[in-house]
Amino acid sequence: MSAVYGGVEGGGTHSKAVLVSAEGHILAETDGPCTNHWLVGVDKCISGIHDMVQRAKIKAGLDPDTPVCSLGMSLSGGEQKAAIQKLIDDMRERYPNLSQSYFITTDAIGAMATASDYGGIVVISGTGSNCKLVNPDGTQVGCGGWGHMMGDEGSAYWISHLAVKTVFDARDNLVTSPHDITYVKKAMEEYFQVSDLMGMLPHLYRNFQKSHFAGFCRKLAEGGRAGDALCQHVFRESGKALAQHIVAVLPKVNQDLFSGEFGLPVLCVGSVWCSWELMKSGFTQVLSQAQAQGFSHFRKYSLLTLRQSSALGGAKMGAQNAGATLPLDYSANANVFFSHTFNQ
Amino acid sequence: MSAVYGGVEGGGTHSKAVLVSAEGHILAETDGPCTNHWLVGVDKCISGIHDMVQRAKIKAGLDPDTPVCSLGMSLSGGEQKAAIQKLIDDMRERYPNLSQSYFITTDAIGAMATASDYGGIVVISGTGSNCKLVNPDGTQVGCGGWGHMMGDEGSAYWISHLAVKTVFDARDNLVTSPHDITYVKKAMEEYFQVSDLMGMLPHLYRNFQKSHFAGFCRKLAEGGRAGDALCQHVFRESGKALAQHIVAVLPKVNQDLFSGEFGLPVLCVGSVWCSWELMKSGFTQVLSQAQAQGFSHFRKYSLLTLRQSSALGGAKMGAQNAGATLPLDYSANANVFFSHTFNQ
Repeated sequence: MSAVYGGVEGGGTHSKAVLVSAEGHILAETDGPCTNHWLVGVDKCISGIHDMVQRAKIKAGLDPDTPVCSLGMSLSGGEQKAAIQKLIDDMRERYPNLSQSYFITTDAIGAMATASDYGGIVVISGTGSNCKLVNPDGTQVGCGGWGHMMGDEGSAYWISHLAVKTVFDARDNLVTSPHDITYVKKAMEEYFQVSDLMGMLPHLYRNFQKSHFAGFCRKLAEGGRAGDALCQHVFRESGKALAQHIVAVLPKVNQDLFSGEFGLPVLCVGSVWCSWELMKSGFTQVLSQAQAQGFSHFRKYSLLTLRQSSALGGAKMGAQNAGATLPLDYSANANVFFSHTFNQ
Repeated sequence: MSAVYGGVEGGGTHSKAVLVSAEGHILAETDGPCTNHWLVGVDKCISGIHDMVQRAKIKAGLDPDTPVCSLGMSLSGGEQKAAIQKLIDDMRERYPNLSQSYFITTDAIGAMATASDYGGIVVISGTGSNCKLVNPDGTQVGCGGWGHMMGDEGSAYWISHLAVKTVFDARDNLVTSPHDITYVKKAMEEYFQVSDLMGMLPHLYRNFQKSHFAGFCRKLAEGGRAGDALCQHVFRESGKALAQHIVAVLPKVNQDLFSGEFGLPVLCVGSVWCSWELMKSGFTQVLSQAQAQGFSHFRKYSLLTLRQSSALGGAKMGAQNAGATLPLDYSANANVFFSHTFNQ
């Protein structure tokens, strides 16, 4: 068969695989569950990836026993060198027919590779959160991405946690809630199927599943759109937190990134961004404050969203690592959904 | 043999068992590991308890196959009704010779029962944290005690986490540290045996052990005593957070509790209180502010520490539940280590 390149987008809740021709055409796409090895372990991670890619081969009418030329994986949790080497070694050993070569990068870098080869800032807010600046010269500066025990600010997990914590603190009289908790408390009891706060403990400890906990965020988004002030508050806080990640890397942004047509390009990845209208006031407020306080060359920014899975960027980088160049049509892969020019 | 009553203090890091005679004399004491069933699971929890009590029987020269009259357990994590009933059922089934009857209460209530039969406020800060007001009429009001995923403010875990998070945030330029991070970063790398922040991830996820993570607090206490400003800061914040728990229950304190010789009695339990000198300024500041802002009948408070394990209070409550009264000498069980009278 002609050369086929595989790509994977591995998230904390869902994953995707894609097969791409040497001309950059998508041959098949498949879906799968969480493949974050920190969350599900190495075994489940690599068997999940194998399963998606093999199903994609069959879907594309290819022989599943013929390895693809390369498999480029854009993984949430794909940062630590020793850990990703272990993933690759294990895949090579357990699935010799999966791929000829392997490459793993983070979800942020895979997303950026899908949208552009010029760089920008990626802000991921899905189950977890992460921010990465990629300068035109390829240098990278990160902020966050340490998972729910050490950050994840602005993510679906974080928003859910903030809402639940607000209910706990109000019950304890420890912190007064800024808004009425009635809606959030009821939504929490329904979503987690509990009748009191004590019932939440198994969801937080013995049966903790980050992805399920983070899924409560969807109910909060519904509440926010229906007008509940506390739901709107937690999303506004998420907007602030994510913007704060951008402010953190702002001093390291190469001047060239500010001067393009869109101003500073910010690639927004992950399902929390579907609630942009609820996050907008907090997000724009933090960036405007930072701009006013010393980043005067920062005149404009644009938020972009991907129209393709970042499995595509993964496939591109995997191919590159194997010596091939996949031509991608970046203008078709991402589009601007919000732009802001500061008053000087 | 004459009547023997067992008591257990179950913590997030260490546990203790005690056997008491009908006259209230301690016959034997033993130590064991963490018996918080949320942290180690039901199996390890009950086998740990069984092991400690059986060793205590042997130490006291008793037949290990003869059940004690009652076993009263003061457990961290001993709150949820369904969960403690399961613990008791499992113990009864697996260890028929352990005890004739069982009683489980929380670590806070067990500690209070050790110090007094009049009530007061218990503030636990060990591996985790918790606060409980016990009024003279027996009514209880709690604040906190939800574990590290939903609180534990002011605990050893929380202090360790705050210090580590400060290092992460400084590295990310996300939040500027209030003080130089050099000492804390180095202490973290030594304690966790890591060379960079990425190395911390296994300690936070795959190999997470709350008790080990919380143990880093000891190094921070050393740093604080040696003059490191960031170490001093995190303990001051712990003092504030624990005092805030007291403020949370203050509106529910029965007037009689304010008017005793010691003013409001606050029983301080757990190893974090060993660093009282580092916590003092934050703690007293928050209570003084609360007093000034509306609790004018709150004139004085005293902090007490236990001189006996709260396994003793557990034994007392277990005996009570079985219809017996253990005479305890409260004045020998607790003593005041700090008193403060507000300026009116």
